[in-house]
Amino acid sequence: MIVDISKRILIVGLGLIGGSYAKVLKRFGFHISAITLEQSSIDYAIREKIIDEGASDIDERLIGEADLIIFALYPHVFVEWIEKNQGLFKSGALITDVTGIKRSIVYQIQDMLRPDVEFVAAHPMAGREVSGVENSTDKLFIGANYIVTPTERNTPEAIRTCIELGRLLGFSNVTTLSPEDHDEMIGFLSQLTHCIAITLMTCNDKENIEKFTGDSFRDLTRIARINDLMWSELFISNKDMLLQQMDMFMSKFNELKVMLEKEDVDGMRAMMRQSTARRALFDKN
Amino acid sequence: MIVDISKRILIVGLGLIGGSYAKVLKRFGFHISAITLEQSSIDYAIREKIIDEGASDIDERLIGEADLIIFALYPHVFVEWIEKNQGLFKSGALITDVTGIKRSIVYQIQDMLRPDVEFVAAHPMAGREVSGVENSTDKLFIGANYIVTPTERNTPEAIRTCIELGRLLGFSNVTTLSPEDHDEMIGFLSQLTHCIAITLMTCNDKENIEKFTGDSFRDLTRIARINDLMWSELFISNKDMLLQQMDMFMSKFNELKVMLEKEDVDGMRAMMRQSTARRALFDKN
Repeated sequence: MIVDISKRILIVGLGLIGGSYAKVLKRFGFHISAITLEQSSIDYAIREKIIDEGASDIDERLIGEADLIIFALYPHVFVEWIEKNQGLFKSGALITDVTGIKRSIVYQIQDMLRPDVEFVAAHPMAGREVSGVENSTDKLFIGANYIVTPTERNTPEAIRTCIELGRLLGFSNVTTLSPEDHDEMIGFLSQLTHCIAITLMTCNDKENIEKFTGDSFRDLTRIARINDLMWSELFISNKDMLLQQMDMFMSKFNELKVMLEKEDVDGMRAMMRQSTARRALFDKN
Repeated sequence: MIVDISKRILIVGLGLIGGSYAKVLKRFGFHISAITLEQSSIDYAIREKIIDEGASDIDERLIGEADLIIFALYPHVFVEWIEKNQGLFKSGALITDVTGIKRSIVYQIQDMLRPDVEFVAAHPMAGREVSGVENSTDKLFIGANYIVTPTERNTPEAIRTCIELGRLLGFSNVTTLSPEDHDEMIGFLSQLTHCIAITLMTCNDKENIEKFTGDSFRDLTRIARINDLMWSELFISNKDMLLQQMDMFMSKFNELKVMLEKEDVDGMRAMMRQSTARRALFDKN
């Protein structure tokens, strides 16, 4: 479906990610509309030709005309939006999203959704330390991963469309995972790393440490600048998986600590060699 | 002393750091010699005009002629070298180093050193994930910190010379700390971060996670490629301080975990806001 550029795409939530989607998709010639809370974001996006039209509240025409709707909202806002406004969808419309956690929204939305509308969830693993449509860029997805998380209720055609969307957006890697595997993976790769970064940034009250810092500490805390509203919601939405990952990390960290206490050089060196070998797999080409 | 370019500088241990020192200092016109284990490193450095002359074993003339000697060796090798060869130093020579931990070497060396030779310790906080003189660069120190760790036994003149050396090398920040404060700082900013990175890289045995990774995980594990021989020695040489930092980190990490368990959103958000505010101090420039 998606390759047919006569189709109309609606983006709900025009921030950094939604705006970046709009920029790329506009280049392909799709008609792009947007609904977002701030009228100034809509005005900016129209002026910059990022979208064709938009509204800052529920616009029945824009929603009713859309063939593909991409939701870039906070998890609970997304669920509430669907609950309230799904009557306005065009029959046969396809819905997808950019939400960073999956189990807690995918089943809930699929359970309540009209039978003539399909929701295939996806997670674009890309971001920046800045937000807002003004910071959106059509280069955001280069080198990044796009994960589609279909369920048994999704049709092969809708899953294919969603995968194709990821490729069109320019993601370097487009893969599928179950919502469960996704949340475990994200609990480890993204949420645990954010937990570590904010802990490192807040555990030491000594003053002036920034005067002595090197690149290691800067690297480990880049993501310590964090949207507290969004991330606290993401953490709680994935609480069980994240707690597991935190335990796994603490247990290994404690192993290292015990080796240091015992001056077990061989043990520490073996761990460092494993770390070095594994890290090589993570280099970007 | 150091600004007088008629003085001769000897670098003992010609790897990434020693080679980078040589490249910068050579530009100022100093006579640079080197002693290092591998003859191939000496050959390379002479061919590339990084040094004027060098040897792969103890060379009495090179040592006896040097006004300033910079040691870039593993901690225990450095101590053994001084023990064995200090008789060869020129009277009035100044010794400095690049060792990443201070308490365990500074006092030991100052205690045994000839009274007519002075040792002022320093730590250039710079590095790369590659090693060897072949990877050295005269740009390594731009934006980095250089910490001089004098003791009561050092003369103001030698301390000034060491500070001046840091500035000549191009470090953006040249500061002094006591060996104790240095080791605490480095335990937190550098050693703890390496402990975290290698833990993160080794705590999860799930396969194929690299296929789904984003930049956050890459940032937190860049330093997980680690020289196991050197870092296990550095960890053990700073065991007490590093264990303290590990405990401090674990305790805060556990606080976050408890907040997540209790779904204490306000507590998590407050921690994230503190983290965001503090991280801003660590941006370069």
